[in-house]
Amino acid sequence: MPARYDLNTLFSDFKTGNRLALSRLITLVESDSARRDEIIERLSPLLSGTYRIGITGPPGVGKSTLSSELVKKNRAKGRVVGVIAVDPSSPFTGGALLGDRVRMSKISLDPQVYIRSLATRGSLGGLSIATQDVADLMDGFGCDLILIETVGVGQAELDIMQTADTTLVVLSPESGDSIQAMKAGLMEIGDIIVLNKCDRQGADRAYIEMEAALHLRPPKDWEPPIIKTFANRGDGLCELMDAVESHRQYLIDEGELTRHFIKRRKEKIRSVIEEKLMGDFWTPGRLRILSDLASNDAPVMSAVKSLLDYQEKK
Amino acid sequence: MPARYDLNTLFSDFKTGNRLALSRLITLVESDSARRDEIIERLSPLLSGTYRIGITGPPGVGKSTLSSELVKKNRAKGRVVGVIAVDPSSPFTGGALLGDRVRMSKISLDPQVYIRSLATRGSLGGLSIATQDVADLMDGFGCDLILIETVGVGQAELDIMQTADTTLVVLSPESGDSIQAMKAGLMEIGDIIVLNKCDRQGADRAYIEMEAALHLRPPKDWEPPIIKTFANRGDGLCELMDAVESHRQYLIDEGELTRHFIKRRKEKIRSVIEEKLMGDFWTPGRLRILSDLASNDAPVMSAVKSLLDYQEKK
Repeated sequence: MPARYDLNTLFSDFKTGNRLALSRLITLVESDSARRDEIIERLSPLLSGTYRIGITGPPGVGKSTLSSELVKKNRAKGRVVGVIAVDPSSPFTGGALLGDRVRMSKISLDPQVYIRSLATRGSLGGLSIATQDVADLMDGFGCDLILIETVGVGQAELDIMQTADTTLVVLSPESGDSIQAMKAGLMEIGDIIVLNKCDRQGADRAYIEMEAALHLRPPKDWEPPIIKTFANRGDGLCELMDAVESHRQYLIDEGELTRHFIKRRKEKIRSVIEEKLMGDFWTPGRLRILSDLASNDAPVMSAVKSLLDYQEKK
Repeated sequence: MPARYDLNTLFSDFKTGNRLALSRLITLVESDSARRDEIIERLSPLLSGTYRIGITGPPGVGKSTLSSELVKKNRAKGRVVGVIAVDPSSPFTGGALLGDRVRMSKISLDPQVYIRSLATRGSLGGLSIATQDVADLMDGFGCDLILIETVGVGQAELDIMQTADTTLVVLSPESGDSIQAMKAGLMEIGDIIVLNKCDRQGADRAYIEMEAALHLRPPKDWEPPIIKTFANRGDGLCELMDAVESHRQYLIDEGELTRHFIKRRKEKIRSVIEEKLMGDFWTPGRLRILSDLASNDAPVMSAVKSLLDYQEKK
């Protein structure tokens, strides 16, 4: 291993706020299962439980613009901000086409903002775990706030949102959005509903629909507010920041913030163990047998038995 | 276990085409890890490799309407059709609000159509595996064709589409859709691109944008056609059926169909093994320790070590 990837050096650079060290550790934690364990070990004492805001919603509602504005507002308060963009696209599209990445990159010139796109395919341990690994590195690095934005809207993305402290569900007044959001399970996971592009036609009707959709949720202690924004002009951002702060205070009062932290620790412990057990099981010999058995007509369960019975030669 | 859930009885009913037996086996395979193994074992000799069509796309483009029309067209050819709606919403919304479920339910009065919504939360082994389990049951039951429709558009849903033989990516002329589809990684996974609602304003421009987006893909042997449909009126469905048939023929000629079948077998073998290993590891004792360790301040890696070292008392 070249000296510059030595974990001792990387972590001492990391602790002095070296961006490159953060970036390299993120790459390592994603790509190298053995190093992941060591990184987690070294990171443990540095974690402070940085607040995590999830931002989700259907394509085209303006999530990235809203994220940028949230970053600006929080920077104005002197906070160091980490942004994780969870993007199911492959390295081929890689988000490189996007106007919002250009917008983001203006923000990324700010040395107190750390942006990372998660290339999700093939990452160890699934999308939700990968996101937590990156968020923990940003936490240990000293970020005061972490924004997690998903591009897709599916099961994996809903799971990610469940690990955020406050989840913003962003919708636009476009016809049928709130129904589509119900379908995708979004209205249920939102702690705050954001009606973005609220200057558009149909915004009032959309607002009423969203209120109706929220009333279909089983009643809970926290009633999600609907905040109207026009992120392109920065309108409504103060109200949104206040709503996030109210939700944070609610979580603190209810002891939920601690429960979130414990839940994430539990998932991490579990993921390290399961990765290890799987890594130990899938020896080159067993992987070869798996390929052979899948290609011939052996019934699935007899293939399973052969693999479980197989003893690797020493 | 009540007699009616006895697997001998269920499978003999299943083999005579009893819908209720299919439905109960789907429920069992989803909820009971031990029975899943036995169901897979009994199902193995019944599998014929039924053709699987995946249908995906952003919310609101008319995927369900298109699915219904595809079902009708295939029923008109005398085919027995299975439909799996992969819906990330919780049991609370459960898809029950939806107009398209009403539309679907008309079709479901047809005794040769089998529709199943996958309630995905908490299913064993992940969304993609759960979908395969249901598809295999429909295959063994005697379906001639299986449609797999996703409601969300995210990583898990992209993974599901990768297990289909032919993937339809459905878009509408709404502004920005093709860019949004690129962002979500959709254009890359489509074997056929469907421009639905092609009567709407902007359809011609959208078509040109989609062609341009397709040209950004790395060149492959199969060039995805763009088919214009207006599913509400059934327009373009014949062309779509022809395109699916061309793609199927292409897969057969290239030996890809066999490779798909082997890939799915491999995933299934792997999932049964990993579920078993995890089930063996997570004894009640270890689960208790996990909860304890996550709640106190033990570093993650020392918690991992305690769990790996723990020996369950006999």
